[in-house]
Amino acid sequence: MIPEIPTAGLYDVINRRRDTRREFTGAEIPQDALDRVLSAAHCAPSVGMSQPWDFVLVRAPETLDVFAKHVGEERDTYAATLEGERAETFSRIKVEGIRESGLGIVVGYDPTRGGPNVLGRHAIADAGLYSVVCAIQNLWLAATAEGLGVGWVSFYREEFLRSLVGMPDHVRPVAWLCVGPVEGLPDVPDLERHGWRHRSPVGSVLHQETYGRRA
Amino acid sequence: MIPEIPTAGLYDVINRRRDTRREFTGAEIPQDALDRVLSAAHCAPSVGMSQPWDFVLVRAPETLDVFAKHVGEERDTYAATLEGERAETFSRIKVEGIRESGLGIVVGYDPTRGGPNVLGRHAIADAGLYSVVCAIQNLWLAATAEGLGVGWVSFYREEFLRSLVGMPDHVRPVAWLCVGPVEGLPDVPDLERHGWRHRSPVGSVLHQETYGRRA
Repeated sequence: MIPEIPTAGLYDVINRRRDTRREFTGAEIPQDALDRVLSAAHCAPSVGMSQPWDFVLVRAPETLDVFAKHVGEERDTYAATLEGERAETFSRIKVEGIRESGLGIVVGYDPTRGGPNVLGRHAIADAGLYSVVCAIQNLWLAATAEGLGVGWVSFYREEFLRSLVGMPDHVRPVAWLCVGPVEGLPDVPDLERHGWRHRSPVGSVLHQETYGRRA
Repeated sequence: MIPEIPTAGLYDVINRRRDTRREFTGAEIPQDALDRVLSAAHCAPSVGMSQPWDFVLVRAPETLDVFAKHVGEERDTYAATLEGERAETFSRIKVEGIRESGLGIVVGYDPTRGGPNVLGRHAIADAGLYSVVCAIQNLWLAATAEGLGVGWVSFYREEFLRSLVGMPDHVRPVAWLCVGPVEGLPDVPDLERHGWRHRSPVGSVLHQETYGRRA
């Protein structure tokens, strides 16, 4: 159980949540807010109640700096695959706020958690990985309710990040989350605002009884 | 944007959410509530705004029946790997409410969504899969806020489920979610109540600066 404090309603939070890059103020997160956010993550569903996640809280400026440089290189690698309008549009898009947020939460997946016979994982090996992402989404929504921004960085190599924070070989890095107070959250997602891609209507992903059969 | 209706606060919903097997009433879900739940899922973050999820809504009793039988076989397969107290404890645990819920939402991952150069996926191939799970967690919380139960079934073979609902080969089944009105949600998770496994304190998964360094 996490302590209940007055906060925004679920749908309001789901609507306001954004992937944050530019809006971090660099201020410290109040400890009680951070505690609630981490408790919300730990309250996520998990296959066989294995709770197979780890959270490494990184604040050391030198670590943030090393990771930001690595991400910059991966950004260049991706940019080199683009041409024309795509390359031009991407050049205006910020992909991380690692230094600006002041806190990186590295999320790991430990498949050894819960013993050798995790209930519900024998047929779906990735079920444990799915649990970790449920925890990330809980964290993200809780942070939004607390007035914090979260930016999920995925321009990195897993082996680099594992080594950077000293995760053992059996723990898989799943995310680097930039987390910190923000001036506010934009109404429109960055990628939409920059014309990278637009959101689709929900009807386009719904099927009735079988795939491809529309309502 | 999903319509905002008066509903429970985020932390309350995160605390009350349960993996539901026994509590389904079999009643129909009001259409407006189902619309909000699906819109909440579609409002999830996604890598490069690819929104790579699909939702197949299955209500046909014969499909529910075929899937429930398959899950029963996989339950037996898993049970055969257990011995002694584990086997005995597992024998009392219900792993699905497929028929009782009356609605299965099959969630798929379509890696072709968003074109050939999904922003943020070049280094982490699974980033698209992670987006799908974020959508599932949004769906789960929204359903909880609406007084619905959700049970994530993972005792199945992906190939069987893909074939059952006619997903093309390039779409990966990620979940079967039993969704429906419930009498209520238990305070304690089923697996804990049955003595399968107990929840750990959040401090056990937190690390400072590097893995293994505790606060």
